[in-house]
Amino acid sequence: MSPEAPEPGTVRPGGRTARVRTAVLRAAGDTLAERGFAHLDLADVAHRAGVGKTTVYRRWGTVTGLVADLLVDMAEQSLPRTETGSLLGDLKANARLVQRTLSDPRQGALFKAIIAAATCDPRTAEALHRFYDTRIREWAPCVQQAVDRGELPRGTDAHEVVRAVSAPLYYSLLAGGGPLDEAAADRAAQAAAAAARAGVYVR
Amino acid sequence: MSPEAPEPGTVRPGGRTARVRTAVLRAAGDTLAERGFAHLDLADVAHRAGVGKTTVYRRWGTVTGLVADLLVDMAEQSLPRTETGSLLGDLKANARLVQRTLSDPRQGALFKAIIAAATCDPRTAEALHRFYDTRIREWAPCVQQAVDRGELPRGTDAHEVVRAVSAPLYYSLLAGGGPLDEAAADRAAQAAAAAARAGVYVR
Repeated sequence: MSPEAPEPGTVRPGGRTARVRTAVLRAAGDTLAERGFAHLDLADVAHRAGVGKTTVYRRWGTVTGLVADLLVDMAEQSLPRTETGSLLGDLKANARLVQRTLSDPRQGALFKAIIAAATCDPRTAEALHRFYDTRIREWAPCVQQAVDRGELPRGTDAHEVVRAVSAPLYYSLLAGGGPLDEAAADRAAQAAAAAARAGVYVR
Repeated sequence: MSPEAPEPGTVRPGGRTARVRTAVLRAAGDTLAERGFAHLDLADVAHRAGVGKTTVYRRWGTVTGLVADLLVDMAEQSLPRTETGSLLGDLKANARLVQRTLSDPRQGALFKAIIAAATCDPRTAEALHRFYDTRIREWAPCVQQAVDRGELPRGTDAHEVVRAVSAPLYYSLLAGGGPLDEAAADRAAQAAAAAARAGVYVR
């Protein structure tokens, strides 16, 4: 790799290379969901995607570079925020999006594999944090709007409220507990809203 | 293994074998914390514990059997519930116990390794769920006492409240976010208490 080459996993190909990226990230996501991070191999991913091995090695460099780019793509593909006009409505929309993602067989397995990899690979952990930061920034304005409407106390930390919605759903995915259904999503949203109204997330 | 032999990982040795178990589980925990599940090997654990390989294979059988027994031991060694006389005090005591455990370098790494292993190994996932069930059953009475004192609505699901205390702390450990400090623990307890008071966890 030349000194000018960008760090693997940070490349954002466009135009004629976009199809290659789509095929490779799809193959990487399928492999992660089916077999986990330990079985992810650049040559296998290239074969599965019908793309030359050299292209994959040159563009993504390493397995962690590939997972980092997959997370960038997942953040880009994520649905934008819904505005319902009330805090509880907005948080429920967010919770149901997280719940649908985590309870989907492919997506749930994919998140489990990436979270597992992040526990022992600092670069994957950073990429995962960037994914969550992107999603939290997307949803934080609904909390600020609730503050502006007088639904929540001034000084409420919007990022903390959005994290509070996701936390019980991820805890169910990873530590077990109740089913990851719509009732669980609504409960997560209601709990975050109740705690925020009580001032728990005021900085 | 004879047909009468108990399933590996379910044996609960006592008396003269207790020292062997302590040494082997200590070595297994150290290896998991330092190197992760993928590097756990019965022969290495036996060597590290200063115990015969045959003993370890005979008693625990497999790596997953060993991790299952480690989780049984972790549940047994966990501190009992604190009674402070108020719901918030009790939940804070629980939250700080979880927070101290997860922010301890060895224990935090150990939980990360076991949660990562549970994402791809059903037997480890079951053992992890049993660990959480034990801990939740230990703390659930503090919620029932708050219902009896009239602090919480009748029909509040005690297990849900206890899970709600842990969820944001595990989410911080695994997905990143704020620091895992005492303030985070207190916020987790306050959020669970506020949501419970608002009736979010009524069945």
